[in-house]
Amino acid sequence: MKTKPSFLPLPLGYLASGIHAGLKKNHKPDMALFCSKFPATTAGLVTTNKVKAAPAKHTEKALKAGAKVQAVVVNTKNANALTGKQGEKDAQKTVSLAAKLLNVPFSAVLVHSTGVIGVPLPMPKILGGVRQAVLKLSGMGGRDAAEAILTTDTFPKYSARPLWIGGKNAWLTGFAKGSGMIHPNMATMLVYLLTDVAVSRPLLNEALREATETSFHRITVDGDVSTNDSVLLMANGACGNKIITTKNQDYQLFVEALKEICLDLAKAIVRDGEGATKLVSITVKGAKTPRDAYLAAMSVAKSPLVKTAIFGADPNWGRVLAAVGYSGAAVDEFKASVVIGGYLLYNGGKKVSWSRERLKQILSERNVDIVVGLGLGRAQDRVYTCDLTDGYIDINGRYTT
Amino acid sequence: MKTKPSFLPLPLGYLASGIHAGLKKNHKPDMALFCSKFPATTAGLVTTNKVKAAPAKHTEKALKAGAKVQAVVVNTKNANALTGKQGEKDAQKTVSLAAKLLNVPFSAVLVHSTGVIGVPLPMPKILGGVRQAVLKLSGMGGRDAAEAILTTDTFPKYSARPLWIGGKNAWLTGFAKGSGMIHPNMATMLVYLLTDVAVSRPLLNEALREATETSFHRITVDGDVSTNDSVLLMANGACGNKIITTKNQDYQLFVEALKEICLDLAKAIVRDGEGATKLVSITVKGAKTPRDAYLAAMSVAKSPLVKTAIFGADPNWGRVLAAVGYSGAAVDEFKASVVIGGYLLYNGGKKVSWSRERLKQILSERNVDIVVGLGLGRAQDRVYTCDLTDGYIDINGRYTT
Repeated sequence: MKTKPSFLPLPLGYLASGIHAGLKKNHKPDMALFCSKFPATTAGLVTTNKVKAAPAKHTEKALKAGAKVQAVVVNTKNANALTGKQGEKDAQKTVSLAAKLLNVPFSAVLVHSTGVIGVPLPMPKILGGVRQAVLKLSGMGGRDAAEAILTTDTFPKYSARPLWIGGKNAWLTGFAKGSGMIHPNMATMLVYLLTDVAVSRPLLNEALREATETSFHRITVDGDVSTNDSVLLMANGACGNKIITTKNQDYQLFVEALKEICLDLAKAIVRDGEGATKLVSITVKGAKTPRDAYLAAMSVAKSPLVKTAIFGADPNWGRVLAAVGYSGAAVDEFKASVVIGGYLLYNGGKKVSWSRERLKQILSERNVDIVVGLGLGRAQDRVYTCDLTDGYIDINGRYTT
Repeated sequence: MKTKPSFLPLPLGYLASGIHAGLKKNHKPDMALFCSKFPATTAGLVTTNKVKAAPAKHTEKALKAGAKVQAVVVNTKNANALTGKQGEKDAQKTVSLAAKLLNVPFSAVLVHSTGVIGVPLPMPKILGGVRQAVLKLSGMGGRDAAEAILTTDTFPKYSARPLWIGGKNAWLTGFAKGSGMIHPNMATMLVYLLTDVAVSRPLLNEALREATETSFHRITVDGDVSTNDSVLLMANGACGNKIITTKNQDYQLFVEALKEICLDLAKAIVRDGEGATKLVSITVKGAKTPRDAYLAAMSVAKSPLVKTAIFGADPNWGRVLAAVGYSGAAVDEFKASVVIGGYLLYNGGKKVSWSRERLKQILSERNVDIVVGLGLGRAQDRVYTCDLTDGYIDINGRYTT
């Protein structure tokens, strides 16, 4: 990491740490701990993959049981997935130790793992890591934690917003790691959203679902869905606001901030997709139905031919429309249009003129915006993806099991 | 092309040619003509992409009308897709000229185009090419035609079988071009299957559907679905057999040969996928339903993480099961197993031991076989894919629009 991120504030009542437990080489931080001094109402979403890692199963169970969470232990390098009964025992052992050291109930601790599938956790290192992480917990630990959850990411991802809720000054802070296996419907990454606002559990769940819909469910790096990834939203109420139990103005403010943070993090994940050099937004307008808009946008975002063309700064709009054509969405080539970087490249089969040189330039920037008009209705959607580069092949062709 | 393929026999009554019309650089052949001296009963399948190229629309219409085909003109370099009304006119002009020169009805000629989307056909070159191709038609032209239909392919693809049908010696010959945008449900490539057997139209359609199901619908290179691609099966009856109108033994022999040819060509297309270094077969056994078996196998075949791991000769079976996990198929990690190159790598979460070195060796070969056992039923399926390499990025990041 070339430039260290500056100090990252945590909301009231939260501590964090990031340490080196010996899982990664080169003394890089590889375990993180997020902690709330008070039991936090917690909402979460877990991978939709039917092959779920032991920690993901544990998280799912805890969330279903309505756990008031106080700590999340995160380790990288090893996913503790497809590790059988041993994997489940290992996750429980980690939880037990953290609960004991922090003096909180077993049910208040979650574990998350990310990394290689199918290899048992190196438990002596993990348990040693938990001890270290507990000792280093601090209100200043956000930056260390942000770094410790990374895998093939090239920069830490966090975003924070102050909030003014019910006369109280509060914070919403988000941490994320992504990079590979990024695809919607949860299974996308690890995300920790911490706030000191008090929100009832049903509304917290609803807010998270709503914010996820326009952020983490609208990004794709490679279409692969991980066995491990999870999004957690912890609300410990330490700011002292009157608990939000209805969809009042406080709730609206909270949801807006949550959406912003989630979109920030989602975009950062895509920008840092494995091997990515560009962040690409794909907007579909004029679709017949919202489902069509989503399908068309996601089909373009997933197309390896589109993603390699963008890597090569090639204004290959034909590949964009071809991807819309097989998306399942209704499309009429005589009504469709394609705009890249503000330039109209295709307009219903009528002749349009544009400068290849100018387009090459636009496609060489770090952000590329593609807008597809379908001219069939009023529905629209937007998704984010990155380009597909030799860097992706390099990282994934050589990643050690 | 390093080694020229040897002479490729055509069935009785067929002629072919491949010429350089000036579309490709370097004097490479870029237009082909397949011709039957007698009107041939023809079955075909056309891309499922809703954005269909002008020639694909024309083919679809002709096949629906039950056209007796005598000629197919193929050009590369330009797909004549998303070219509006002009594109449709250009396709018709090409058909008209070929029909006139060959002295056959307009309805007996099909055109196929493959290449860049959204650029009008260079008609003077195309029409000049048709003239050249007609002049060079010969019974020995199969090899030239096989080469002329290629785009980013690195070798010509054909396969032939002699048949003994109703006391007559007959042939079934197949030509294909593939490489990119290869994904099932038609839209996969251009394929020409020529036979001198006489088969009724309904049975010819059924035979093609059946053979396609286990071949061209079971391969994927990059998941992209082209706007152009088509499979044609022409049967001109020149061998003199009694026309096949029922599912008798002759029909069975014919279908078996057709399946073999189609699988041959399908595998050749995958082996020659853009940038591919390996042909990978993925077999799923013990699935709950046939649909599950298909979904699981195709999900593994499409996973960029699996495909890059195979490129890197990394026995990363965890990625294989993760892809099964998000396929939609029922899976139980405690009943599943993964076998790569004959070696059991995962068995329901129980410990198995295997040599990483031996596996590296196996994965370095040109053929890789992956077998996933689900242990939940009796359904099975098999699909073919290739590895994902820097070659793919190279080809598609730099392919000129």
